[in-house]
Amino acid sequence: MPWPPLRDALVGDEPYGAPQLDVPVQLNTNENPYGPSPAAADDVAAAVREAALGLNRYPDREFSALRRGLTDYLNSDGGRDLTPDMVWAANGSNEVMMQILQAFGGPGRTALSFAPTYAMYPEYARNSLTEWVAARREDDFSLDLDKARQLVQELQPAVVLLPSPNNPTGTALPPEAVSMLCEAAGNGLVVIDEAYGEFRRDGVPSALELIDTHRNLVVTRTMSKAFALAGARLGYLAARQEVVDAIRIVRLPYHLSAVTQATALAALRHAPELLGRVADLRIERDSTVEWLRDQGCAVADSDANFVLFGTFADRHAVWQALLDAGVLIRETGPEGWLRVSVGTGEEMAAFRAALTDVIATHPPTTVKETR
Amino acid sequence: MPWPPLRDALVGDEPYGAPQLDVPVQLNTNENPYGPSPAAADDVAAAVREAALGLNRYPDREFSALRRGLTDYLNSDGGRDLTPDMVWAANGSNEVMMQILQAFGGPGRTALSFAPTYAMYPEYARNSLTEWVAARREDDFSLDLDKARQLVQELQPAVVLLPSPNNPTGTALPPEAVSMLCEAAGNGLVVIDEAYGEFRRDGVPSALELIDTHRNLVVTRTMSKAFALAGARLGYLAARQEVVDAIRIVRLPYHLSAVTQATALAALRHAPELLGRVADLRIERDSTVEWLRDQGCAVADSDANFVLFGTFADRHAVWQALLDAGVLIRETGPEGWLRVSVGTGEEMAAFRAALTDVIATHPPTTVKETR
Repeated sequence: MPWPPLRDALVGDEPYGAPQLDVPVQLNTNENPYGPSPAAADDVAAAVREAALGLNRYPDREFSALRRGLTDYLNSDGGRDLTPDMVWAANGSNEVMMQILQAFGGPGRTALSFAPTYAMYPEYARNSLTEWVAARREDDFSLDLDKARQLVQELQPAVVLLPSPNNPTGTALPPEAVSMLCEAAGNGLVVIDEAYGEFRRDGVPSALELIDTHRNLVVTRTMSKAFALAGARLGYLAARQEVVDAIRIVRLPYHLSAVTQATALAALRHAPELLGRVADLRIERDSTVEWLRDQGCAVADSDANFVLFGTFADRHAVWQALLDAGVLIRETGPEGWLRVSVGTGEEMAAFRAALTDVIATHPPTTVKETR
Repeated sequence: MPWPPLRDALVGDEPYGAPQLDVPVQLNTNENPYGPSPAAADDVAAAVREAALGLNRYPDREFSALRRGLTDYLNSDGGRDLTPDMVWAANGSNEVMMQILQAFGGPGRTALSFAPTYAMYPEYARNSLTEWVAARREDDFSLDLDKARQLVQELQPAVVLLPSPNNPTGTALPPEAVSMLCEAAGNGLVVIDEAYGEFRRDGVPSALELIDTHRNLVVTRTMSKAFALAGARLGYLAARQEVVDAIRIVRLPYHLSAVTQATALAALRHAPELLGRVADLRIERDSTVEWLRDQGCAVADSDANFVLFGTFADRHAVWQALLDAGVLIRETGPEGWLRVSVGTGEEMAAFRAALTDVIATHPPTTVKETR
């Protein structure tokens, strides 16, 4: 055994995470720029104070009140008569994903996604000893349904993991793609990761609508983005009860603290306020897409709160020049592309001003449209 | 693939956890019966309110302030010049243990413990695909050091997991046992789980004192027990920096919420108050041990906030009769034994009264002393 005795598959790996830099304009981790109001913060604090007096006791292992709250919310945004035993939560959707792969993945099983896709997925697979296969999306970041069906039938993955809208491209999956994948996957699960679901454009449905049609469909959400609650770490999912019950076998007991449960419940009570900024962010997102196209950039259509644009011969130089101007974006996605989160109007003005300067010396190398 | 597509090793398993029953006297999960004071709850709430205003942002991934606070505390209770890069935390020590096995266990590797031991350990091994071996303790629940050394040298476990004091027996490991295991384990890790470390009797040292002697020693702690913070889910460890850095590879990013960090830091500020009840609980524990022996029970010496006693021909009947009398204890440990957590004076009086009645019809079947 080497020292330290790290298992072989991890040797040389680095901890995942974007740089946490203290920069005036932070547009790199798709955070919601609008924090909770003082009224919401007061309510969180009051709920936590009540919980604090009983912190010597373990929390409700089944987080029943929170599950009811999340269920009601999901039924207001695409869910059809979901019940609390069809809803599950954990410390961030990354813990939800890990639990899914711990329950349904493992040695001899495959998790499939289509790249470019969320960069954490291979880490969940690595940590759960699940074989990871990343097929390719088309040049416009859509899925070719025939190719995808064929691949799913061939590989028989235990879990298909697909963000919709996709991270880092912003591309939403059409409902026919979700249905096709669920049918092709047999007893394998199809996990549609709707971390950014609330930002979808008008007319784009949530996969939640399809849970009563496909028993192998799992839809994950998070309170980090639209709910502006990244710091509270609350991810959740909706699925058939038998899927939720299977996940309960691998969850660590008491995984959701009493403080987390109280905080998330208080945030749900303030849903109208916290979600109220989503409309503003969608408008800001659409105008960012338009502006970037006007600058000669290729820009992926986005149903999320971020925009992927490019391509640059030296994207790192562009990223660094923006950072030097006080604007932190993300160097991610296919070579040559960059991702910017949608911030406030002021933040996006700062981004546009900085990028205008940078583009003068680092012009985009393609004007190909990827609508 | 079956439906739902649970992996084979999990089929038939049940979610771990003691019954959460609404009973007047809860002495089943080794909680601290003394909740935080209103002043401590106020401070937690104030800290959370401040954090709440920034919850739209991800938390400090390295939880630097909390690590400093935990380091200072550990250096006041056995640690010798620990630095924050030698300290790590997660959502409960069960997440800490999972991270250890995800980093250092896995297929082809073994985790070793000595039964009776903490019932969650095999679940960590199962979830991390680590082979689980449970050797036996002696009849008095101590370790035979020669046999243990031989087994460690033979099996070469990647991780030895040992609670001290042991759960469910309450037995502390002598420092020579820790040193022997660390030497025998080579590059394998020896994890001493001091979840109940603060309850140890006078003169019993913490394994923290040995971290500068053995580079493969890891000592875990929790705020759930002595700190009376089970509801906040904060476990932590101290080890050499290279061990901590390796764990960072498998941790999920942002695993500790801003709310958890704020809550734990506030609790550390109230350490004297929260820990102040430990002395009372140790006195109550010692008198519980004595009283049980007076009733003719075999009782394991305890350095924890619980007592293992027995043996009963039908321990389930004893457990049920106590529950019927409003006293919930834990049916765990070797056949015939029961575990009672140490509660308040009133709770222990209720336990004694109920057990006196029960013993009249279910007398202990052995009076063997296991000091």
